[in-house]
Amino acid sequence: MTITSKPELGIALIGHAFMGATHSHAWRTAPRAFDLPLEPRMTVVCGRDGEATAAAAERLGWEESSTDWREVLTRDDIDVVDICTPGHTHAEIAVAALEAGKHVLCEKPLANSIAEAEQMTLAAELAASRGVRAMVGFTYRRVPAIQLARQLVAEGRIGEIRHVRAQYLQDWLLDPEAPLSWRLDKKLAGSGALGDIGSHIVDLVQFITGEHLETVTGALRTFVTERPVQAASGGFTGRAGTERGPVTVDDAAVFLAELSGGGLGTFEATRFATGRKNAIRLEINGSRGALSFDFEDMNVLNVLDTGDDPHVQGFRRVVVTEPEHPYLTAWWPPGHGLGYDHGFVNQAADLVGAIASGQDPTPSFADALGIQRVLDAVERSSQDRRSWVSVPGARFAAPAHVPA
Amino acid sequence: MTITSKPELGIALIGHAFMGATHSHAWRTAPRAFDLPLEPRMTVVCGRDGEATAAAAERLGWEESSTDWREVLTRDDIDVVDICTPGHTHAEIAVAALEAGKHVLCEKPLANSIAEAEQMTLAAELAASRGVRAMVGFTYRRVPAIQLARQLVAEGRIGEIRHVRAQYLQDWLLDPEAPLSWRLDKKLAGSGALGDIGSHIVDLVQFITGEHLETVTGALRTFVTERPVQAASGGFTGRAGTERGPVTVDDAAVFLAELSGGGLGTFEATRFATGRKNAIRLEINGSRGALSFDFEDMNVLNVLDTGDDPHVQGFRRVVVTEPEHPYLTAWWPPGHGLGYDHGFVNQAADLVGAIASGQDPTPSFADALGIQRVLDAVERSSQDRRSWVSVPGARFAAPAHVPA
Amino acid sequence: MTITSKPELGIALIGHAFMGATHSHAWRTAPRAFDLPLEPRMTVVCGRDGEATAAAAERLGWEESSTDWREVLTRDDIDVVDICTPGHTHAEIAVAALEAGKHVLCEKPLANSIAEAEQMTLAAELAASRGVRAMVGFTYRRVPAIQLARQLVAEGRIGEIRHVRAQYLQDWLLDPEAPLSWRLDKKLAGSGALGDIGSHIVDLVQFITGEHLETVTGALRTFVTERPVQAASGGFTGRAGTERGPVTVDDAAVFLAELSGGGLGTFEATRFATGRKNAIRLEINGSRGALSFDFEDMNVLNVLDTGDDPHVQGFRRVVVTEPEHPYLTAWWPPGHGLGYDHGFVNQAADLVGAIASGQDPTPSFADALGIQRVLDAVERSSQDRRSWVSVPGARFAAPAHVPA
Amino acid sequence: MTITSKPELGIALIGHAFMGATHSHAWRTAPRAFDLPLEPRMTVVCGRDGEATAAAAERLGWEESSTDWREVLTRDDIDVVDICTPGHTHAEIAVAALEAGKHVLCEKPLANSIAEAEQMTLAAELAASRGVRAMVGFTYRRVPAIQLARQLVAEGRIGEIRHVRAQYLQDWLLDPEAPLSWRLDKKLAGSGALGDIGSHIVDLVQFITGEHLETVTGALRTFVTERPVQAASGGFTGRAGTERGPVTVDDAAVFLAELSGGGLGTFEATRFATGRKNAIRLEINGSRGALSFDFEDMNVLNVLDTGDDPHVQGFRRVVVTEPEHPYLTAWWPPGHGLGYDHGFVNQAADLVGAIASGQDPTPSFADALGIQRVLDAVERSSQDRRSWVSVPGARFAAPAHVPA
Repeated sequence: MTITSKPELGIALIGHAFMGATHSHAWRTAPRAFDLPLEPRMTVVCGRDGEATAAAAERLGWEESSTDWREVLTRDDIDVVDICTPGHTHAEIAVAALEAGKHVLCEKPLANSIAEAEQMTLAAELAASRGVRAMVGFTYRRVPAIQLARQLVAEGRIGEIRHVRAQYLQDWLLDPEAPLSWRLDKKLAGSGALGDIGSHIVDLVQFITGEHLETVTGALRTFVTERPVQAASGGFTGRAGTERGPVTVDDAAVFLAELSGGGLGTFEATRFATGRKNAIRLEINGSRGALSFDFEDMNVLNVLDTGDDPHVQGFRRVVVTEPEHPYLTAWWPPGHGLGYDHGFVNQAADLVGAIASGQDPTPSFADALGIQRVLDAVERSSQDRRSWVSVPGARFAAPAHVPA
Repeated sequence: MTITSKPELGIALIGHAFMGATHSHAWRTAPRAFDLPLEPRMTVVCGRDGEATAAAAERLGWEESSTDWREVLTRDDIDVVDICTPGHTHAEIAVAALEAGKHVLCEKPLANSIAEAEQMTLAAELAASRGVRAMVGFTYRRVPAIQLARQLVAEGRIGEIRHVRAQYLQDWLLDPEAPLSWRLDKKLAGSGALGDIGSHIVDLVQFITGEHLETVTGALRTFVTERPVQAASGGFTGRAGTERGPVTVDDAAVFLAELSGGGLGTFEATRFATGRKNAIRLEINGSRGALSFDFEDMNVLNVLDTGDDPHVQGFRRVVVTEPEHPYLTAWWPPGHGLGYDHGFVNQAADLVGAIASGQDPTPSFADALGIQRVLDAVERSSQDRRSWVSVPGARFAAPAHVPA
Repeated sequence: MTITSKPELGIALIGHAFMGATHSHAWRTAPRAFDLPLEPRMTVVCGRDGEATAAAAERLGWEESSTDWREVLTRDDIDVVDICTPGHTHAEIAVAALEAGKHVLCEKPLANSIAEAEQMTLAAELAASRGVRAMVGFTYRRVPAIQLARQLVAEGRIGEIRHVRAQYLQDWLLDPEAPLSWRLDKKLAGSGALGDIGSHIVDLVQFITGEHLETVTGALRTFVTERPVQAASGGFTGRAGTERGPVTVDDAAVFLAELSGGGLGTFEATRFATGRKNAIRLEINGSRGALSFDFEDMNVLNVLDTGDDPHVQGFRRVVVTEPEHPYLTAWWPPGHGLGYDHGFVNQAADLVGAIASGQDPTPSFADALGIQRVLDAVERSSQDRRSWVSVPGARFAAPAHVPA
Repeated sequence: MTITSKPELGIALIGHAFMGATHSHAWRTAPRAFDLPLEPRMTVVCGRDGEATAAAAERLGWEESSTDWREVLTRDDIDVVDICTPGHTHAEIAVAALEAGKHVLCEKPLANSIAEAEQMTLAAELAASRGVRAMVGFTYRRVPAIQLARQLVAEGRIGEIRHVRAQYLQDWLLDPEAPLSWRLDKKLAGSGALGDIGSHIVDLVQFITGEHLETVTGALRTFVTERPVQAASGGFTGRAGTERGPVTVDDAAVFLAELSGGGLGTFEATRFATGRKNAIRLEINGSRGALSFDFEDMNVLNVLDTGDDPHVQGFRRVVVTEPEHPYLTAWWPPGHGLGYDHGFVNQAADLVGAIASGQDPTPSFADALGIQRVLDAVERSSQDRRSWVSVPGARFAAPAHVPA
């Protein structure tokens, strides 16, 4: 079925769990919402289990399924490899894909170790020199209110940044009887709340402010240290609920940071914030204005402008759904809000645009490596109970063009 | 005890229930918060029961108590009569006080009938020609955010008024076993939710917009038509809970209004708004801006200015505690909010200021008569199931000076 | 391209403007988000202009385009006709489609006149007897928070309904120089704010409460009575900005209503609510609890339960994104909110489910006719300045099954 | 003037600036709002400047004024010494007053150094053995919502505390041309934002949770290091605006804390939080529930109970104005909110109650010393860039009785 006259862009999706589903939605929707220069084609989805992957292909709308991602890399009709697998597999797949000349979209966190992330960044830079693009899926950057926040900082409306408050609050591990999933195993997941969700707020703060975190001090905490072992999938084991295994990652992380512009930041990432489901809360106070955002009200950015007349000065509740707002020409009329998945659609559209125009998309692997280094410094600060660990060689890409 | 060198202003309070308590607080506090030209002296409180009134004098801080308000009117050391009794007694006391040359502060609603209100207004106008002042206690006008709202309309920031949404929501009659108090007896109270709290939102809308309600159509409703008769106070009667009597006033009132400037208003006053305790909610949309207020967050006025840049336009959450805001030079630093009673203190200060400067305070008895006429038109509309009853001879005072 | 083994359901979309785009998104997304019994196939889109319709087909993802909807009705591979054209064309297309044995999804308002709506309802009932389904696109019913609201009323948590406050507030006509679009022409649009958005809040109130509006009284208002005539599309006319034509529909509507259960409602629909973009605000107070909703925060339902301990009683801010909430098993994890378009996807899924299971979907044409009658009564009340016009023969379908 | 038959309690106020004004309001109001066992008498106010103090006596309502606080301590008609002077004078006055057998209410922070605070605590403990009471003015404890928060923790509704987020945000030093007041001089003020407002959030967290901060790590920051020197009060100096002096205290403080129950806390106190005027924000996540408070909406406590049914679970917005709530029997009906000053009135009433009943009031000097030690540990952590400084000998009073 050909519904468009545009050149096609063949996509291979690796992984078909939660992130695979959101990326599938994005690839399907982006060319209909945006007038893209290339038409993404949902060619093949890869997974380990043949039957499950075939079912995922039908459910998520991919033409084919495969259990051999290496074979997929050899196909001429694949242009983009979209990596939605757990973190410990990212490096191998991404490096191979880039070397095979495929553009790569890799989910965050980039890797489970600094060494892997460095290797991937090197591969991405080599690939870039050959016109192959690499991008990391810090999708919350693509929420229009976040883009607007960055734009307002860039416009000078906030002034010099003095304070950042950044929290990513969830509560899905509250129940001590919640099972010991792979996400709680350091070997597979690399990190707990810090890497999974703390990485997002580090990225968002650096993206919005255009600054980076120079030194950090913090603490990790595991509140529930043992949990019931899950039965192996697909079979009865008789162990569920009786055997317990150790949680080897953090449940929560708190840290302070000094920003490169001289401001102070407080950061918190936790899966134990009772009553908060996916609350990404950012607050920035500058010398001229301030910003406040909460993902639980994701279509709103609160903006303070100290230039307003004193008797009518206060945070403006900007509903970020106007045609003047980032990405909104592709979407609905004012007040008809967007949801979680729209950020992924915007992300897919941006990647297609970058590929077509021959530009490097952001966030780059180098950006993601910088975030890994921040998280690593937090972890070392916590382990050693040392204060103010410097983030070594923090690399931070220059502020990218803000989408109109 | 003399703690001030200023000339004194002798106050007599008539009634010592809830309103008597708030007015006592106001007389005690106003000269300490504001630099008043006269020093109010809490000379005497009047009530029907000698013992109870004496106890009230001690509790509320009055020098003397009396059971004879007529005698009090003859005293030279009384300058102001503050009427906090139920509505059916207002006319007699107020007219007598004005004729005795005493300034009068009368609680709202002004009277239980249009005829009484007209008589009182006439008395006030005659008294004014002799330099005697009369004022009605629509105290919510004295909330700083409300004053600011009026100021913004006067500054032209809102433009032509198109829509008004005004609600006064309480829920204290929700329980059908709540007893049949005098407030539910039309002979004593005159009206139910309409007169008690509906009068406030009519006043606030007219005060803020500087317009008046020209025609109305509405409905009154009594949801619980019979309630347990209360035992007589002070004795055991054995009747409580078994005998029931009829509720003769409205539990709730809704009405639409056409404003003199061409806008449309929706109004609602109810004691059955489950979960709302004292929610006075006002929203005004004009051709240039908008306002939104909720007494449950009384230190905040939300203000929209359509002149703001489109990408940063939104309701500004103005915390009305800055020195630039009405009454705030008398109070606490920014962000240190005010409560319910501060409006009464501001009201007392305004009255003292008007007396000292020889000006007529607002709202006048004529203003209150205008409000009575609106409520009467609503009631007639409801009884006859007639639409759009005109408010006869609606008199509306010119916008008063907005306090700095 | 076949990506599924399920039986297909051929869809024809009539109209490809704003509503056509949202419906296209819904047909594309529903089978991927939900495990549907049938696979919708986006077969053909119809429009008046061949070139524009062909472009729309590519942009929105339809296999073919056509300028002859009557011809499309004869095709065997079309099972569902989805009508997204202006209101004055609904009756002709819907009746023809139903007579041709096609299931129909018709956008609201159902028709521009009661007579047309009655004719359509009759056609739908005849079709139903032949197993052909008809449904109206009151899509806001499919917002999870709205479904939850209805469920809570049905569970008895709210009790007897005393008060309803329903507002649909927009501001896109604020500028008096906004052009005279077809939506402001009564011949084409049938009605202004009342029919376009007032219809939604009447539907939502009746849907949530399970009651209907028995009598109404109200007022319509046109604030800007003349606007610049738009140049004909596709050519230079020289008239834009100089010639003006009359606005023949209402800019705003306010009305009161008596509900069938004895409660009182206030309703307001306007395109002049400065600062409100698409604020659908509902508040319901019952004898046991209360509900509050605002589409500007569409993933939240505020719920009061008077059974809570008094010292911890207050409106609960329920983030309606849990697996226990309506439709949410198809969507993202807790706290990962939905947007405007998800209601359309849910709607498409519900229609497919009804077709597959042989049940009549809701809201039916009869439900929509009932809404038309309410709006008509409001209009007559406004024209005659008569109060409390009864809604004749108000028909209200029994509460449908609430989705799990 | 004697308006009560109760035994009197003679009060001497030392200092008559901002805090002196709020305490005056409290002494005047408390016996009228509460039915106190003793009648406070506002006997004398002390200050350095005779004329200014005499004016303050009239303005604030004190019977006499004095420039000799030592002389006042010898008076038999003085029972309570209320210290509202800058921190560097607290120790001398408080110790002398306690030794003179006077009950003491001392403003926070208790002292400018640990040594002074220890000396004062010793004096208070000695005095207590003689029936002389000492209390520190951490007035925010007396906000009803805060008392309710503590009560809910004590009731077990929150469970084990996992996370605390505590912020005290102001912005009054935002302007770099704001003058160099004594509050910015470390010799006089002892500390900047940390001691002035950070002390409050440490107290509130310890008070609500019943835990103490065991170890801390943090950073202080002075954003504006030089400011214009103020002209000496009372004379023209010609220096204002040209000469600049160093700011020797912190503008902002951030720190992390480990709580004695194993939870993690993030703390922030700043005078540079653009747009926040007096935002005391507390959020507590426990194993069974959660709490959220913001002083900008001070009559509200948001409460989550994980025991609620999942489909109606969410933060309850409790308006803390019911008769069931702490202190509320003394105040207004539901929904008629309190303001900043009511906490001071409640505090005065509590102190009078403690004196009359012969109980030690809270917070004690020992409690305040514990807070000083936390602040000192933060400061040392910041200076040395050391992490996780233990709070030595942290003493924390057992949870006091929660007022009904």
